[in-house]
Amino acid sequence: MRIYFTFEPRPDLCESLLAEFPQVHFVFERRLSHEELTQADVLVTYGEDVTEEALQYAPNLKWIFVASAGIEKLPAQAIMERSIIVSNVRGIHKTPMAESVLAHILALKRAIPWIYEQQQKSEWSKKAKQSELYGSTALILGPGAIGSEIGRLLQAFGVKTIGCNRSGQTAPYMDSMTNFTQLTDVLPQADIVIAVLPKTAETTHLLTEVHFRAMKNSAIFMNFGRGNLVEEHVLLHAMKAQEIGYAVLDVFEQEPLTADNPLWSLPNVIISPHISSHSSRYVERSLAIFKPNLAKWLRGEGDLENLLDLSRGY
Amino acid sequence: MRIYFTFEPRPDLCESLLAEFPQVHFVFERRLSHEELTQADVLVTYGEDVTEEALQYAPNLKWIFVASAGIEKLPAQAIMERSIIVSNVRGIHKTPMAESVLAHILALKRAIPWIYEQQQKSEWSKKAKQSELYGSTALILGPGAIGSEIGRLLQAFGVKTIGCNRSGQTAPYMDSMTNFTQLTDVLPQADIVIAVLPKTAETTHLLTEVHFRAMKNSAIFMNFGRGNLVEEHVLLHAMKAQEIGYAVLDVFEQEPLTADNPLWSLPNVIISPHISSHSSRYVERSLAIFKPNLAKWLRGEGDLENLLDLSRGY
Repeated sequence: MRIYFTFEPRPDLCESLLAEFPQVHFVFERRLSHEELTQADVLVTYGEDVTEEALQYAPNLKWIFVASAGIEKLPAQAIMERSIIVSNVRGIHKTPMAESVLAHILALKRAIPWIYEQQQKSEWSKKAKQSELYGSTALILGPGAIGSEIGRLLQAFGVKTIGCNRSGQTAPYMDSMTNFTQLTDVLPQADIVIAVLPKTAETTHLLTEVHFRAMKNSAIFMNFGRGNLVEEHVLLHAMKAQEIGYAVLDVFEQEPLTADNPLWSLPNVIISPHISSHSSRYVERSLAIFKPNLAKWLRGEGDLENLLDLSRGY
Repeated sequence: MRIYFTFEPRPDLCESLLAEFPQVHFVFERRLSHEELTQADVLVTYGEDVTEEALQYAPNLKWIFVASAGIEKLPAQAIMERSIIVSNVRGIHKTPMAESVLAHILALKRAIPWIYEQQQKSEWSKKAKQSELYGSTALILGPGAIGSEIGRLLQAFGVKTIGCNRSGQTAPYMDSMTNFTQLTDVLPQADIVIAVLPKTAETTHLLTEVHFRAMKNSAIFMNFGRGNLVEEHVLLHAMKAQEIGYAVLDVFEQEPLTADNPLWSLPNVIISPHISSHSSRYVERSLAIFKPNLAKWLRGEGDLENLLDLSRGY
């Protein structure tokens, strides 16, 4: 039984794996090599290195554990044909991502960018334009594990939360729910619109000009899901025309954003280079999900946590 | 019955006062004038304009309503001798202040200053040093209305809260309590030390070199109470010697901070020019506290809200 990691956890985390699973042969590399694949029964990866070609070198592969949430780069068809099971670390991002979302919202409400600028000029001034998060309304596109955690924190700040998903079915920490087709009707109520949707056919270009025009002039739009949600030219137009107050973007149609992209210099746009989910505790948490599932799998039990249905894309 | 405001609320707020209290003669000015004082029964003020001299021009004055929290500039002795009652808007600051405190903490934990800097350079990099607020321990010096609100929000983020006051008596949203004399023993546990203490003889220079040395090297120290808490040279030394991770300061021994103050340019110090309590909803909320108390007072009832004991200083 060989388990092949295409990244290298901290030494103490590796040691604990070796100690807890003496019957397993672990291989830790910092990349995916075809030689190692030929012997691997389980692949532990961040998901970006698994190609259709790579799978051909892995005749024994039965389980891919993806230590991230995004699985859109996996060769879904080839994996399904081989009946390889795939599980991920769904929910692992919820704490750092929700903290990043709240950090950006509170920063804008409490004039943190202005405070930093004044300090650079050594200038004491009280003319900050500050408002409050309390009493706002937030629309959360995609109230899954991450969106609901954002909703929980927003509610603690006295924010009314409206969840929006495909079905309109209830989700935790949402005061009310709506669905994709009714989005335009609900957008005028929202002070903050937070998208944490996965990349699927349905979410691609889900937001259009119409939606930005329907938002409040003062609205903060945040995309912390995937860049496919809105075409860049639509976003650029909305921000240049000041149709809304701010856009805070963690994801983009094309990543990395090139240095000449006009988004960088718009005064009402905040660029976060797809780092909102990062955390110094990330690998530790991934392994805390992986280990009990590995134990189950070694016992021959099939009901692993976070098993993915690649035909649906999430 | 004349009520003299030394500031001017928004027209709609003035109108609602006139409509609700037709029996009262309201005067709204943007400053304190001796002429108007001679006739005033009630003075509504932000508190900084009331001097001992001014009181001599106000023979009828029975009640001073201070639309702020800080009352240290009031001529306490003269007010007590005249038996003028004083009430304030205690608690009005809790929402904007708690939001500012959380904004600064989350900004540092989620690398918001770094994100803004990268954007200025149009530079896509994922090398942010981000950590999480979740699982931290916060020590709150002065868990009153504001401190408890900060505690409530921190607990929602999974932070353990330790309150610290003179007596060590329990306070809301504190997981445990300590008192001023045991501070040095508790400081090593805290990832964040948040001071929201009023200015009194006891809080003056309460924090000394010993306390900064007792804090974690990574600790964030926040003073959002009053500048008397710690001598500036003590703070400067602690920050230059990097005894702690960050200081976020909203208050100072001398305000405004002069342009040549070395605090401005220390990389581990964030300067907020005493604006953390500011909010566009401030006057509205002050009047929401004032009105029911005015109604009580007109009925001759004495148990006004937030009556102050000037002999204790808060």
